Amino acid sequence: MKVVAAPNALKGSLDAIAAAAAIARGVRSADANIEVRQCPVADGGDGTRAILARALGGRARAVDARDPLGRARPSGYEWVEASDLALLDVASASGLSLLREGERDPSKTSSFGTGELLRAAIDGGARRLLLGVGGSATVDGGLGLLSALGARCVNADGAPIAPGGRGLLELAQLDLRSARELMHGRSLTVLCDVEQPLTGANGAARVFAPQKGADAAAVVELERGLERLADVLQRETSHDVRLLARGGAAGGIAATLFAVFGAELAPGIDFVLDALGFEQELVDAELVITAEGRLDQQSLSNKGPCGVVRRAAAAGVPTLALAGAISDDFPLESSGFVAALAIARDVTLEPLAHAERWLESTSAHATRLYLCGRAAQRARNS
Amino acid sequence: MKVVAAPNALKGSLDAIAAAAAIARGVRSADANIEVRQCPVADGGDGTRAILARALGGRARAVDARDPLGRARPSGYEWVEASDLALLDVASASGLSLLREGERDPSKTSSFGTGELLRAAIDGGARRLLLGVGGSATVDGGLGLLSALGARCVNADGAPIAPGGRGLLELAQLDLRSARELMHGRSLTVLCDVEQPLTGANGAARVFAPQKGADAAAVVELERGLERLADVLQRETSHDVRLLARGGAAGGIAATLFAVFGAELAPGIDFVLDALGFEQELVDAELVITAEGRLDQQSLSNKGPCGVVRRAAAAGVPTLALAGAISDDFPLESSGFVAALAIARDVTLEPLAHAERWLESTSAHATRLYLCGRAAQRARNS
Repeated sequence: MKVVAAPNALKGSLDAIAAAAAIARGVRSADANIEVRQCPVADGGDGTRAILARALGGRARAVDARDPLGRARPSGYEWVEASDLALLDVASASGLSLLREGERDPSKTSSFGTGELLRAAIDGGARRLLLGVGGSATVDGGLGLLSALGARCVNADGAPIAPGGRGLLELAQLDLRSARELMHGRSLTVLCDVEQPLTGANGAARVFAPQKGADAAAVVELERGLERLADVLQRETSHDVRLLARGGAAGGIAATLFAVFGAELAPGIDFVLDALGFEQELVDAELVITAEGRLDQQSLSNKGPCGVVRRAAAAGVPTLALAGAISDDFPLESSGFVAALAIARDVTLEPLAHAERWLESTSAHATRLYLCGRAAQRARNS
Repeated sequence: MKVVAAPNALKGSLDAIAAAAAIARGVRSADANIEVRQCPVADGGDGTRAILARALGGRARAVDARDPLGRARPSGYEWVEASDLALLDVASASGLSLLREGERDPSKTSSFGTGELLRAAIDGGARRLLLGVGGSATVDGGLGLLSALGARCVNADGAPIAPGGRGLLELAQLDLRSARELMHGRSLTVLCDVEQPLTGANGAARVFAPQKGADAAAVVELERGLERLADVLQRETSHDVRLLARGGAAGGIAATLFAVFGAELAPGIDFVLDALGFEQELVDAELVITAEGRLDQQSLSNKGPCGVVRRAAAAGVPTLALAGAISDDFPLESSGFVAALAIARDVTLEPLAHAERWLESTSAHATRLYLCGRAAQRARNS
């Protein structure tokens, strides 16, 4: 019997590689004869860079880059020599996890550091750039990033706008020439973990700014700022990116990179599954076990487990989802999972500290139950 | 396909009858063709009276009785007319759940109210008395209970001892004549949910007094009190009850009822399963699903789910355990369960308020996973 362990990271507690190993240990503790393929995945969110580097053979390159509040920090990207390919993610320099709780404020946080990483990759010889955009702390429409690439983002007086989402409100003009020259002849693919557009009720400000630290008033300001950005981008690039699918990823970075550089906005999970050769892993598999920190309504857009179950279903393999938590609003029927189990075995304990053991243990018990159903059918047939 | 839903109560959040209904709903939501037998169980702990009344056809009789701190409260027992049988439990008048957090103190709490219930049942014509002893607030060695039946428990000066566990330390003499007269010609069976003895490292004080509110110093005093009680009981009844199995149930009530009235100390779960005709329910069943508030090392003594899995295994039916929480020390391998899953689906929510929905939901998902294993085997055979 072959099982494919294809978890996403459990955000904040367990990376996808450790999660796949925990699932494998659990499954094999139920039956040591089961072959478990460890196939950790990523969807454009935190960890995407590491998962792709593992699949494509990347080597880390260290670079200092500014964090969302402008402080220089060690950061980096992965370099795949064979194809002049750089693997980057927004979380590495502009991620929410780089900030303390009280520092989170998308009016002030900037994507400048991600632009520094892109620039370093270009200076390092990259012809292809892959950028995962999940886990960002910013709603600055990618203007920080553009500035780091040499764009001039100025207000009506011709002065540089303030960093962070609040700067969007004073944006009057973009000078994109040097940035476009820098990117010329290179391909840029943005790996998105959400489908949301730049503006509107489902846009980057309304849906994602609250979890990045914005209060209700700030959300309204950020939405106005993104509208203004869309106006300026349309004037300068002819593209109307307001309702472009995935344009709202990483606080608008995706929409801006599309308009300015013609970047491809790809569903991260599908790109990663292709890179991993996931269909090949599914051959002769009887069960896929995926995992995620939290399954909710939002998981259905383009989060890792939903990409996994789509591919597995197409190959005729059922998928079990394990999660740190499962919201009431998670629509199991339409998700395609055969079952979804939460891993928390003792609510009096600190979940983050126990995620690895609980994932292993729940994998073991779920496998035992599955095998029990198998044995019952075998007994009926004999 | 037939499934037997045989849960214990999930203490503090869901009684066994509601738990069985939730499991049944969950299983049938996975496949409406599954026949689910609802067979809620009890092990001598909270709810035993109601479960036995349901099985044996008892009718509630209301009686006022004193709570563990001596306050009169509405309480009662169940009356089974056909067999002059009274069903009582310690939790109804002397239960921990009758006290607020700050009131819990086994040095002061008394089992007097349980004695009042026994007396009312005897006055009401009971020839057989069944007493469930789980969930008690007391470690008074049952001396409160004995007093309510007319026993005189006095100190060296011939004065009545103080109520509660602290009274044990001054106990000098027991006059048991009227209590024994009252009980004469009647059978008394004590349904125990634990195997622990009265005294020693595994005794009623050391193991159970802390969860009833005793601090370390109080535990030492209570242990000395129980030792003194054992001395006096041995002098008055010739029985040495110190290490009698189950004697430590309900803070020593079990040991005292054995020594004074020759009560039978029965494992509650086995008595209840016999009364329910559990073996009959297991015929042609493919899976048993049991449930419990918490599975830990202690669950292995004689808690409901462990009795259920023992009987089911003997009949060749696998048992799945669902629980509000599963401790790290719960030894799955030796428990006999095919798998144990925790039901908490979102640790950020209040567990007690969601237990019913989570139990239903986890039953549904577990059944789906089981059926998935069954279908895989069917596909291999075709």
